[in-house]
Amino acid sequence: MKISLLLTGNELMTGDTIDSNSAYLAQSLKDLTLVPYIKKVVGDDLSLLVSSIKELAAVSDVLIVNGGLGPTVDDLTAKALSLAIDSPLQQNPQAMAKLEAWAERRGFVITKSNLKQTELPALCKVIENPRGSAVGFHCVHEGCLIICTPGVPGEFKHMVEASVLPLIRAHGHLDVVSEITRIRIFGITESGLQDMVDAEFPDWPAEVELGFRVQMPVIEVKLATIGEQARGLNALWTEKFCTRFSDYIIGRDSTRLTEALNTALYNQGLTLTTAESCTGGLIAAGITSEAGASRVFEAGYVVYSNKIKQHTLGVSEASLMSFGAVSEVVVREMAEGALNKSGADMALAISGIAGPDGGTEDKPVGTVWMAWGRKGAISARRFFFPVPRLAFQKTATAIAMDLVRREVLGLPTNVDYFSELKKKRA
Amino acid sequence: MKISLLLTGNELMTGDTIDSNSAYLAQSLKDLTLVPYIKKVVGDDLSLLVSSIKELAAVSDVLIVNGGLGPTVDDLTAKALSLAIDSPLQQNPQAMAKLEAWAERRGFVITKSNLKQTELPALCKVIENPRGSAVGFHCVHEGCLIICTPGVPGEFKHMVEASVLPLIRAHGHLDVVSEITRIRIFGITESGLQDMVDAEFPDWPAEVELGFRVQMPVIEVKLATIGEQARGLNALWTEKFCTRFSDYIIGRDSTRLTEALNTALYNQGLTLTTAESCTGGLIAAGITSEAGASRVFEAGYVVYSNKIKQHTLGVSEASLMSFGAVSEVVVREMAEGALNKSGADMALAISGIAGPDGGTEDKPVGTVWMAWGRKGAISARRFFFPVPRLAFQKTATAIAMDLVRREVLGLPTNVDYFSELKKKRA
Repeated sequence: MKISLLLTGNELMTGDTIDSNSAYLAQSLKDLTLVPYIKKVVGDDLSLLVSSIKELAAVSDVLIVNGGLGPTVDDLTAKALSLAIDSPLQQNPQAMAKLEAWAERRGFVITKSNLKQTELPALCKVIENPRGSAVGFHCVHEGCLIICTPGVPGEFKHMVEASVLPLIRAHGHLDVVSEITRIRIFGITESGLQDMVDAEFPDWPAEVELGFRVQMPVIEVKLATIGEQARGLNALWTEKFCTRFSDYIIGRDSTRLTEALNTALYNQGLTLTTAESCTGGLIAAGITSEAGASRVFEAGYVVYSNKIKQHTLGVSEASLMSFGAVSEVVVREMAEGALNKSGADMALAISGIAGPDGGTEDKPVGTVWMAWGRKGAISARRFFFPVPRLAFQKTATAIAMDLVRREVLGLPTNVDYFSELKKKRA
Repeated sequence: MKISLLLTGNELMTGDTIDSNSAYLAQSLKDLTLVPYIKKVVGDDLSLLVSSIKELAAVSDVLIVNGGLGPTVDDLTAKALSLAIDSPLQQNPQAMAKLEAWAERRGFVITKSNLKQTELPALCKVIENPRGSAVGFHCVHEGCLIICTPGVPGEFKHMVEASVLPLIRAHGHLDVVSEITRIRIFGITESGLQDMVDAEFPDWPAEVELGFRVQMPVIEVKLATIGEQARGLNALWTEKFCTRFSDYIIGRDSTRLTEALNTALYNQGLTLTTAESCTGGLIAAGITSEAGASRVFEAGYVVYSNKIKQHTLGVSEASLMSFGAVSEVVVREMAEGALNKSGADMALAISGIAGPDGGTEDKPVGTVWMAWGRKGAISARRFFFPVPRLAFQKTATAIAMDLVRREVLGLPTNVDYFSELKKKRA
């Protein structure tokens, strides 16, 4: 099935707005094993819109038009479609009812500009838009399903899931989705996950479509059951998937890694303190990026120099001299020191070589030690992330947070993070 | 002048790669007061590439093709152009010489795949690419200038500045750019800056094009002098601009705000310590995101709770009780405490209400106090950023860093940041 995309808006042409809608749509189409055929972007130019709709509809099975549904004069999509498919604009009763309800809920008076949003090509059917004032609409023209959607990303994304994908399925005589489960994964790449699923679940049923979406540092996995008859399969395969990948699952739906960490701490009634060298405060900043962080986090120490590691956290000079700042002994002393200073229940300490300078043969740039745990029960691990400074800091931060999350939940902390990347490098 | 853009690559269609090249190009064209006409994106499909080149070249004065120059079989741009303009592929001596030099420098053996990169349509001229193995190329076909460019963003951006813009100028009989100055600005929005320039420099000469590019949280301002005869005007208007906007200038070329702060500290031989509440470590993380941060930064304190503010930094219980954690008195005590604890030359302290909860009538969500300075010479200011939590944290972090930079450089610290936004809200 050839699916093309026409985006409209001057702000897209000037580079002032970065288009995230088409990447979202492409990722959603992946679940149907479809890849967009042509993407075209034009400004708010009526004749260009008309010719583009004609051109793309002629070579595609589905054309998704995005943007240009607003109330202003530069919103031209309905008019352009009307001309392209030769179907006159007329007031659509469903669109009008939706507008009246929308205005009433907000106490707004309907303006002439608003009324423009109810005038659709006669051939078109309305698509609900619960997030905004402009409805979407669709029609079939010479065999091509044309779907017009709003440019506002929140409205667009909702419409893709709720209406666009079902319309495409129906047009292509594909079964509808009867169940969806979303699982959040950390510690394995998208391609690593795909390879493992392919290798270990040769009997994965076609009725349960598996989709992946990268939302750094997390991957969202979507299990979509296709067809009413397959209803019930979702729960079974979700369980199989979760059992196999339990090492990497941080939650369901839209769970962030920082959110998963804070929630785990909160549910156990625990507070955490941080002692950071190479990540320079990034872990504390991650934890406190979440609303309600004060319930689980009171104190963080950024101990960038050896002198401060000694003075602030009581790391011993002898340990620093004998083993160096990036060592198991020192990172354990940092964790113990942070526990003593803060009175927190748990500590997370990290010391590494972010680069570009400071590496040695024994401890090259990318080497990092992490220590975490409760008083008298500190664990430590060494990692190696041979990537540029900022990527090193982000990777170390995410893995350190995940280790604490696991510790709190009683999960194993010897997980082999991103092992598939190491195999590639080796 | 109608400039169209054809991007090619399967990774762009699947949404796995977000296209940043076209926004970069659009921002560069802005300096010529040009907006792209049509942008089209297709996968690695030869017949679709051929028809797209023909179609876009027929309706445009300039067509920029991006991507598909690599050595693999799915890199089809040269072949597609050859078919579209009916000019046979042949080995280009200049491309071959470039490849040989490139391989020799790296000690690589030239493979058959590499040789493919030297086969260009006979009509085409080579464009140098000092950043990669694939040269660009261009030709004029039925009045349309066609320019083929590499997809790798670093290579593309360099080629845009060095070759693509000059080629477009020449094709459109525009004068060449004789001088360029880039100035980095913080504390005013792009549109605020544009409005002030329009209002205060009515005599700004057309020969000195002024361009803006947002690189959060900084804005890059580009002064480009057009034409050989205007040479010399750049220095004069750069000086006028810098004098008027001295309050907002953090440096030249690609200076980051964190880099400007660290450089200012280093040049004065000063070290800084941080005491953060509402930003939770984001300021320390910003400073230590820069290589060489250890020269100016040893210690940071994330004091999220009142108890820790007292225990770690010696903030008095009486001050917390009388004035609250978000107050001038407390934030000054935080700064003094951090100076005492760390032994640093300067301190930066911050305490505010990031939200969504925790606001009061007196101190609504968005209220923040900052204190900065040397021992016995601490300054403080109150700000109000009524924006969502993450935006609040980022804005407060950037402004706090800028205040210290100003203090170090002896610049005024009573600057009215983003005042044009306040006027809009009022």
